[in-house]
Amino acid sequence: MASPVTPTPILKDELDIVIPTIRNLDFLEMWRPFFQPYHLIIVQDGDPSKVIKVPQGFDYELYNRNDINRILGPKASCISFKDSACRCFGYMVSKKKYIFTIDDDCFVAKDPSGDDINALEQHIKNLLSPSTPYFFNTLYDPYREGADFVRGYPFSLREGVPTAVSHGLWLNIPDYDAPTQLVKPRERNTRFVDAVMTIPRGTLFPMCGMNLAFDRELIGPAMYFGLMGDGQPIGRYDDMWAGWCMKVICDHLGLGVKTGLPYIWHSKASNPFVNLKKEYKGIYWQEELIPFFQTTSLPKECTTVQSCYKELSKQVKAKLGKVDDYFNKLADAMLTWIEAWDELNPSTQLQNGK
Amino acid sequence: MASPVTPTPILKDELDIVIPTIRNLDFLEMWRPFFQPYHLIIVQDGDPSKVIKVPQGFDYELYNRNDINRILGPKASCISFKDSACRCFGYMVSKKKYIFTIDDDCFVAKDPSGDDINALEQHIKNLLSPSTPYFFNTLYDPYREGADFVRGYPFSLREGVPTAVSHGLWLNIPDYDAPTQLVKPRERNTRFVDAVMTIPRGTLFPMCGMNLAFDRELIGPAMYFGLMGDGQPIGRYDDMWAGWCMKVICDHLGLGVKTGLPYIWHSKASNPFVNLKKEYKGIYWQEELIPFFQTTSLPKECTTVQSCYKELSKQVKAKLGKVDDYFNKLADAMLTWIEAWDELNPSTQLQNGK
Repeated sequence: MASPVTPTPILKDELDIVIPTIRNLDFLEMWRPFFQPYHLIIVQDGDPSKVIKVPQGFDYELYNRNDINRILGPKASCISFKDSACRCFGYMVSKKKYIFTIDDDCFVAKDPSGDDINALEQHIKNLLSPSTPYFFNTLYDPYREGADFVRGYPFSLREGVPTAVSHGLWLNIPDYDAPTQLVKPRERNTRFVDAVMTIPRGTLFPMCGMNLAFDRELIGPAMYFGLMGDGQPIGRYDDMWAGWCMKVICDHLGLGVKTGLPYIWHSKASNPFVNLKKEYKGIYWQEELIPFFQTTSLPKECTTVQSCYKELSKQVKAKLGKVDDYFNKLADAMLTWIEAWDELNPSTQLQNGK
Repeated sequence: MASPVTPTPILKDELDIVIPTIRNLDFLEMWRPFFQPYHLIIVQDGDPSKVIKVPQGFDYELYNRNDINRILGPKASCISFKDSACRCFGYMVSKKKYIFTIDDDCFVAKDPSGDDINALEQHIKNLLSPSTPYFFNTLYDPYREGADFVRGYPFSLREGVPTAVSHGLWLNIPDYDAPTQLVKPRERNTRFVDAVMTIPRGTLFPMCGMNLAFDRELIGPAMYFGLMGDGQPIGRYDDMWAGWCMKVICDHLGLGVKTGLPYIWHSKASNPFVNLKKEYKGIYWQEELIPFFQTTSLPKECTTVQSCYKELSKQVKAKLGKVDDYFNKLADAMLTWIEAWDELNPSTQLQNGK
């Protein structure tokens, strides 16, 4: 007879779940079987006097704006307010090796056979197996069960590189920008694509922060979600900004970025009119940002994430400052972020420098 | 009441199906509902005195070695013998805009709902919709029904570029090299990944010739399958070679390459011991070929596929000739191929030059 012992959840003591929110966290009920063994870091956005209810039985710490100001002092200026970009504060205060971050309107999705998808477990699998950024494998992730490298894949590249980021996707409400939301209000993502793949070296992608995991030791300091929301000219580009910076640095340092599985169920489309207001500057600035990130190169002296990030901040100021003064402010905030990170994480400087 | 009218198959008069073979083409019976409306070009490999039987009702032309020698004269030396690389002769004699090529051990696969997959129709869809090589879309092909570009995808890149190549995949026997076949003799591909995606610019991949379609007018002259088989030191790198040359040229000319759907059912693994003999030089030469193709750049004066291909031949001779004298021969054969192509296709030179 099988014993009723539940296996220890993988990486239970090495992973924090970061959740930015403005409301009671009832959505955690559905995630209970998967998240309860893990520690949660809740970043409360908006009015700090509001009390956020967390369902019983979860192990968590919660930070509101007063906490952020108290912990970071003047450096708190680098953490966005009234925008989910505030989540990156959670990355900074975590003491764990891995982070999984998820939005509070994301629920458990089902796979085509009707089973609940353990999104966290799939992210961990993605992070613990290597990536293959230097050559495309046509059968997708060669490290998955039942797959391998196909004929013609160079043998010298089959060891792969460490995976720094796992980017998951969304069933139901797709992550569209405001113009696409307006044009296709009824579009739902119903296609379950059973694949994980490495984003090739030199290729940028739109990283969404809704369902995302990463190795904090490998890439944490690059996961800054920028200046968005209250007092800033744009919103909804926080995860994009982090994704572009992160990808350039991963390419430089020889780290991998995966996308595909796992899916979560994204329940609610945000208001496209509000989104348009937040996004419109991003939509045209982006046309200059992408060529900037596509052509950026980091000097080989930059061997830590921190030094790469500081160099990137310098280049942002030099090349994007003329697009809008906002990028000068952002470049300064990038430096403040790194200073704050290093203060809170004195040991990772050494780890990354090894 | 629905009328019993069968819709005209798409591109019926603009596409040839090229099949290299050494045996009777009984496999066509299973493809009859899909292939019968199209014209077939059969390239008979091996003994030309053998009679290949083609099931009744198919419209085809068949070329054996004697035909190839007669049509190309001394230039026939560029067409491989006793290797499926001979298929590229079919690309050259076709007068159509599109080519679909398939191996005679490939059968109709079923999708997860149990329906027969019309592979040809999916290839045509892939070729007729644009590609997106400059930025990765996390929901895969944005032009498919139910999908689009996600938030953060630059609007200036949403028009895409013309698609030159559609690379399909295989259920059942995966396309593994001899060492992997030997190590995993029982592995079968059972994972149906419901996705089509663009291979990003600057990224190489292993192109398999088993289930492949392309736009002959856009990229035909780059689809040379090299010198393999009889009298040559390697085999089973014909499609790989074509894929690397083709990808470098597509990247240079701003053309797209897609991979993913459609699947075919690959019925029979080839003998891994025989394959090892054919492949082993390729396996170590490849370690020099990949860096060569990854760093090759074509001058901007090369604006036609032919001129790109001739330039590539020059670089192969200059940089790979020292790896093995075989590459000098191959570089010469690449030029012969282009000469033969232009003789048989005098108009495509002009088309490509426009």
